[in-house]
Amino acid sequence: MRYTTAGESHGPEEIAIIEGVPSGLHITQEDVNEQLSRRQHGYGRGERQKIETDTVTFLTGVRHQLTLGSPITLNVHNDDHNSWSKIMAPNDVATSENTLRKVLRPRPGHADLVGGMKYRHQSDLRNVLERSSARETTMRVAVGAVAKKILAEIGVDVHGFVVNIGPAKSDLSTLTQYKNLQELREVTENFKTRALDATADAAMRDVIDKAKRDANTVGGQVQVIATGMPVGLGSYVSADEKLDGKIARAIVGINAFKGVQFGGGFDNSEKYGDEIMDEIFWDATKGFYRGTDNLGGFEGGMTTGEAILVRGVVKPIPTLYRPMKSVDIDTHKEHRASIERSDTTAVTAAAVIAEAMVAIELAKSVLDKFDSDNIDRMKEQVAQYREEIRAF
Amino acid sequence: MRYTTAGESHGPEEIAIIEGVPSGLHITQEDVNEQLSRRQHGYGRGERQKIETDTVTFLTGVRHQLTLGSPITLNVHNDDHNSWSKIMAPNDVATSENTLRKVLRPRPGHADLVGGMKYRHQSDLRNVLERSSARETTMRVAVGAVAKKILAEIGVDVHGFVVNIGPAKSDLSTLTQYKNLQELREVTENFKTRALDATADAAMRDVIDKAKRDANTVGGQVQVIATGMPVGLGSYVSADEKLDGKIARAIVGINAFKGVQFGGGFDNSEKYGDEIMDEIFWDATKGFYRGTDNLGGFEGGMTTGEAILVRGVVKPIPTLYRPMKSVDIDTHKEHRASIERSDTTAVTAAAVIAEAMVAIELAKSVLDKFDSDNIDRMKEQVAQYREEIRAF
Amino acid sequence: MRYTTAGESHGPEEIAIIEGVPSGLHITQEDVNEQLSRRQHGYGRGERQKIETDTVTFLTGVRHQLTLGSPITLNVHNDDHNSWSKIMAPNDVATSENTLRKVLRPRPGHADLVGGMKYRHQSDLRNVLERSSARETTMRVAVGAVAKKILAEIGVDVHGFVVNIGPAKSDLSTLTQYKNLQELREVTENFKTRALDATADAAMRDVIDKAKRDANTVGGQVQVIATGMPVGLGSYVSADEKLDGKIARAIVGINAFKGVQFGGGFDNSEKYGDEIMDEIFWDATKGFYRGTDNLGGFEGGMTTGEAILVRGVVKPIPTLYRPMKSVDIDTHKEHRASIERSDTTAVTAAAVIAEAMVAIELAKSVLDKFDSDNIDRMKEQVAQYREEIRAF
Amino acid sequence: MRYTTAGESHGPEEIAIIEGVPSGLHITQEDVNEQLSRRQHGYGRGERQKIETDTVTFLTGVRHQLTLGSPITLNVHNDDHNSWSKIMAPNDVATSENTLRKVLRPRPGHADLVGGMKYRHQSDLRNVLERSSARETTMRVAVGAVAKKILAEIGVDVHGFVVNIGPAKSDLSTLTQYKNLQELREVTENFKTRALDATADAAMRDVIDKAKRDANTVGGQVQVIATGMPVGLGSYVSADEKLDGKIARAIVGINAFKGVQFGGGFDNSEKYGDEIMDEIFWDATKGFYRGTDNLGGFEGGMTTGEAILVRGVVKPIPTLYRPMKSVDIDTHKEHRASIERSDTTAVTAAAVIAEAMVAIELAKSVLDKFDSDNIDRMKEQVAQYREEIRAF
Repeated sequence: MRYTTAGESHGPEEIAIIEGVPSGLHITQEDVNEQLSRRQHGYGRGERQKIETDTVTFLTGVRHQLTLGSPITLNVHNDDHNSWSKIMAPNDVATSENTLRKVLRPRPGHADLVGGMKYRHQSDLRNVLERSSARETTMRVAVGAVAKKILAEIGVDVHGFVVNIGPAKSDLSTLTQYKNLQELREVTENFKTRALDATADAAMRDVIDKAKRDANTVGGQVQVIATGMPVGLGSYVSADEKLDGKIARAIVGINAFKGVQFGGGFDNSEKYGDEIMDEIFWDATKGFYRGTDNLGGFEGGMTTGEAILVRGVVKPIPTLYRPMKSVDIDTHKEHRASIERSDTTAVTAAAVIAEAMVAIELAKSVLDKFDSDNIDRMKEQVAQYREEIRAF
Repeated sequence: MRYTTAGESHGPEEIAIIEGVPSGLHITQEDVNEQLSRRQHGYGRGERQKIETDTVTFLTGVRHQLTLGSPITLNVHNDDHNSWSKIMAPNDVATSENTLRKVLRPRPGHADLVGGMKYRHQSDLRNVLERSSARETTMRVAVGAVAKKILAEIGVDVHGFVVNIGPAKSDLSTLTQYKNLQELREVTENFKTRALDATADAAMRDVIDKAKRDANTVGGQVQVIATGMPVGLGSYVSADEKLDGKIARAIVGINAFKGVQFGGGFDNSEKYGDEIMDEIFWDATKGFYRGTDNLGGFEGGMTTGEAILVRGVVKPIPTLYRPMKSVDIDTHKEHRASIERSDTTAVTAAAVIAEAMVAIELAKSVLDKFDSDNIDRMKEQVAQYREEIRAF
Repeated sequence: MRYTTAGESHGPEEIAIIEGVPSGLHITQEDVNEQLSRRQHGYGRGERQKIETDTVTFLTGVRHQLTLGSPITLNVHNDDHNSWSKIMAPNDVATSENTLRKVLRPRPGHADLVGGMKYRHQSDLRNVLERSSARETTMRVAVGAVAKKILAEIGVDVHGFVVNIGPAKSDLSTLTQYKNLQELREVTENFKTRALDATADAAMRDVIDKAKRDANTVGGQVQVIATGMPVGLGSYVSADEKLDGKIARAIVGINAFKGVQFGGGFDNSEKYGDEIMDEIFWDATKGFYRGTDNLGGFEGGMTTGEAILVRGVVKPIPTLYRPMKSVDIDTHKEHRASIERSDTTAVTAAAVIAEAMVAIELAKSVLDKFDSDNIDRMKEQVAQYREEIRAF
Repeated sequence: MRYTTAGESHGPEEIAIIEGVPSGLHITQEDVNEQLSRRQHGYGRGERQKIETDTVTFLTGVRHQLTLGSPITLNVHNDDHNSWSKIMAPNDVATSENTLRKVLRPRPGHADLVGGMKYRHQSDLRNVLERSSARETTMRVAVGAVAKKILAEIGVDVHGFVVNIGPAKSDLSTLTQYKNLQELREVTENFKTRALDATADAAMRDVIDKAKRDANTVGGQVQVIATGMPVGLGSYVSADEKLDGKIARAIVGINAFKGVQFGGGFDNSEKYGDEIMDEIFWDATKGFYRGTDNLGGFEGGMTTGEAILVRGVVKPIPTLYRPMKSVDIDTHKEHRASIERSDTTAVTAAAVIAEAMVAIELAKSVLDKFDSDNIDRMKEQVAQYREEIRAF
């Protein structure tokens, strides 16, 4: 499975094409819309999420709610485009009238300045920010929804939630009380911040409120958990086959993510070997298993069968309503940075995006290993493989 | 540039082929040996490093100390192979005599168990561990040495050192005192632990000594810094073009690495937006620049021209001389895990490996953007591009 | 540059996303429409070309007639979809009403049978043929139009015409009379068959008329010529870097193409070495050059600077109105194959498609070698490189 | 499966690394040597083949005659290197003594001139020809030997022979008399030219003798046949998934190959549709099948289950002992081209190389579709899939 996204933030359409989805997978537009909605809602999101309700249209690759095996095109219309149709017009020559709202004072932390240099967009940094905008992550969530449908067919579940927003933190020790991700999902999805507990949710809302009052922004950390993956996806034989490495790239490739870790991650660097490794046990019913999951579901770049635990860190949104120092690229004079409409925090949405990216990488790894032409044939193979592993 | 490594830990040879290195690059075997030596030495390394001194031979792609543009083969002989020549013989049928030293009790934290399941290596998990061994990183350091030569041609320097080993930590506040990486290198390379200061070096050695006495192992964190990169490498236009994402994959793809972060990384998740973004300034001589580097040299997945700051976390070595619980794969009975000769810590070497991986990704990004057929033509283009960026 | 196409023959939309097009390239929808029109017209095309006039919409990546550097989405609406909206509905469950026009008797020569087996489309082979249809080549011509715009910026021209349709052949000896491709284009584009001369055009129309009367179909050969390519694109250093190999894959990857050759191709196999190689000359003004072009513009998988000569062979369209023997996949009884609306020949269109594919591969090779972030910077580099080559 | 080759013609070693070979495959060095020997022998080969007998060493990835799943390194030593050790020394600075045998007069038809321009090898075109030499195909034959072992496990056989050398042609009508490729192999491998019949063999030898007397060279055509491939390898869903396209690239990527065709190929362009398509039949025992194989085993870029028929055309070797016109790159004066030791024809070897390349692409397609971690698991899946297809 490979995919490509396209679209500018105020252009007419966001598009994604996914290749390599097995034929025969049941999927509806509602399956995707449900995930798009999760991305749009969250405490601290700004006006745009109220203007638009993202809904997907399947342009290709699906017939009668079943995938064809051919490339699938997902299309989300930008309702907001109406106000921008001249400024973003593809087929009209630039005039004084349709080049309003130029951006010439790059925002620190955004791609504006460097993107302008790289692509020679001196006349208007809008040519950068329309694409570098996190609007693009809409399509990654849409692709992730397809990935999650594939994974669901083989009993893999994936869920993301918020660890902290600024100084306000979820109580991670409560995680052990959930039997499965569905139970966890029902809790975290009911908090406006996607926190793990009510106390944290309230504290996070306070942090967001404060940041908003200060015309500031705030970041945080998100956690994604995946359960039910077959053992032995990814490989140690070559470094670029390691599945955790692929997930790391996918997470850091999300707008604003500045780091990723697995299992205990950075905290484990202060511990000793015998505190960290997950000991090995065997049981006639389930075969080999572990008692702990300190390594976050990976050994040697391969899935161990334990839950996959991925943490990402999200920097604050760089657009500040009380802007930071910048320089006008025309005059080279110091100016405060431009302002584009923006949110106070995107951490709550980031949990959904990170979940999507993990789902995409897991689905890819499954489709790579097994015959992925048809979903039923794939399921048959996965079942046989699981039985083989159980009997090892 | 792309590369492939091959080789088993006790096999006869470690090999790497690198494609896409420009012609005309001056390089000698000594350039590579110098880096191999850095990887081998370090407090806490075990016996193997004393048995062997890794030296490279150029089998292809180099003539009269200049690259030809054709694939370069690097070869490091495993001196230790002599004791293993029958056990690892490629062309002899397995007999009772040459299958001694079987591994049947997988070590928690290593690839042994999962690798055995995936590749059906039930008869001997040695078939897994010979390749999953960190011995393979020798070749990544060798490839990194070539990458560093390319980067040096355009004034890019890369250096890695140790942040902490277990609870013993370098004093990162001293970093500001170094004008360039060469000054830093002269300090950290003279500590046996690759720490940043003498106090930390002593404390780290104590931690290692303690772990060794306890038949335990210990992990840590390493930091890589790269200076002098041109602005605008990587891109925001598609998620898989982001250079920080590629580096994340490269770092997590190193044996034992469980996380990666850029700039302030995870710590920044508790701060507000105006504390983190790097404000933009302009100067007639150098053009645009920043006063800080909180984002670690990346905006929108692109190099900003500031120093690149990459941190990785290394888990302790999983082979314990007082082994953890495991299960014999033949009998399904509980047993302590097998023991393979091993070190107490690999963090000091890990700094060199992480440095190599960052160098490789940076070199790739430069070769991708510019005409990389010939090193001199590339240098001409980089110089022109830099002048263009300066005049933006 | 990489691209992906999507779309079913009777689905609502044909889509392509192109990544890696430099910013700053001037392009309009009319530039693409012009090429789409060339594909649609041609003697022997059937009814569909009369129903529809393909026109493109730029959904992403272009603003004010200039590319942004971000992914470009091309969209061609299938006018014909109106009659198929229920049968091809993505979001409705299959019912007896919307599964009319099932295909159960696979057409020899098409993907129907094998595609049905591979993707388990037993219930309706329409699930195969909607995608395997040559309708998809619309988008490759659209992508090719973008590639041709890139190439035009550096003085590369590409043109395709028809060598023969069945037994009726163009007189290739007339080729020498054209000073450049523009002159050639004005001739061949004015023949309804895209032949090289009026006699051949008339003969080809007779062949098509005969085939149509016989409810038969007919194939042929097409020739693509490209002029003005810089020297040294592609490489000999690794087999998969050879540019002629990449073009071979692109040509054979077009629906119905069964072979490809360069320069004298298969005919040269009966000649001796001194009859075939292109001797080398030098001139103070233009540098090195050749007197002949028997090798079709390639040595060692690299462009020599001479015209690129690519020939492809197109099998007849497999859908026959007097169908061949087949078997019903439900009953396993012998039946004549199903009929889908189809043309008598596609060779005239195939010349345009082959031209597009050659343009795509040439553009890719240029974008790979030079800095392709911005079209003007790329042009500067190409000019410098050409001067270097001239002075060799 | 992916592979990389490295090595200069007079360098010390030829190397290939293959990744992605399933674990548990039985293979010996003799399996590879047998194929290397086939490449070396043939009427018209020159002196080098007498100097050297190529033999492979497995440096990595194989233990006790079984693959480990880790990368396999194949090494063939260049015996001829002894005479060139100074001229090709990697680690010595160039001196007047070790830069003898410079090449400054590029040979038309070889990569010399263009390669020199591209890589700035003005000082000595030997830097080009050492890699562009067909010596490199040794390693592709070695990799092909591994591919053939994989294919043999699932009952796929591949064989190449010579169609014509210059005007002397095999009688292709005799092909129908062979029940399988093994029978065919026993005939063609016993002719020194690899012709299909004794008359052709004699005629080909005459052609070669004549060319040699004339200090000339001669080309030809080779045919590769593959039997037993599962149905449905490759795909129509995206152009770059077409397996025939991949084979086309692999064939044209062989040194001196200027074209490729499938089944009837170029000859079919003069026929009508009903003469070419392979009608579809069904039988309770074997399921669906065809009565003819005009399309060479491919429909829609997928294997049909019929024999795969690939034809390639090989240009004469460009090095002539009565050299063609060239220009000295130092003086820009006209000179006859340089001479390197060379053969009169390579067509007989080319059949073996083309066979190897087809085997590699077929093996890749099988490994891509099925779980390729372990050869036995793969065989189980292929068997199940074949049964499914039979029952379609």
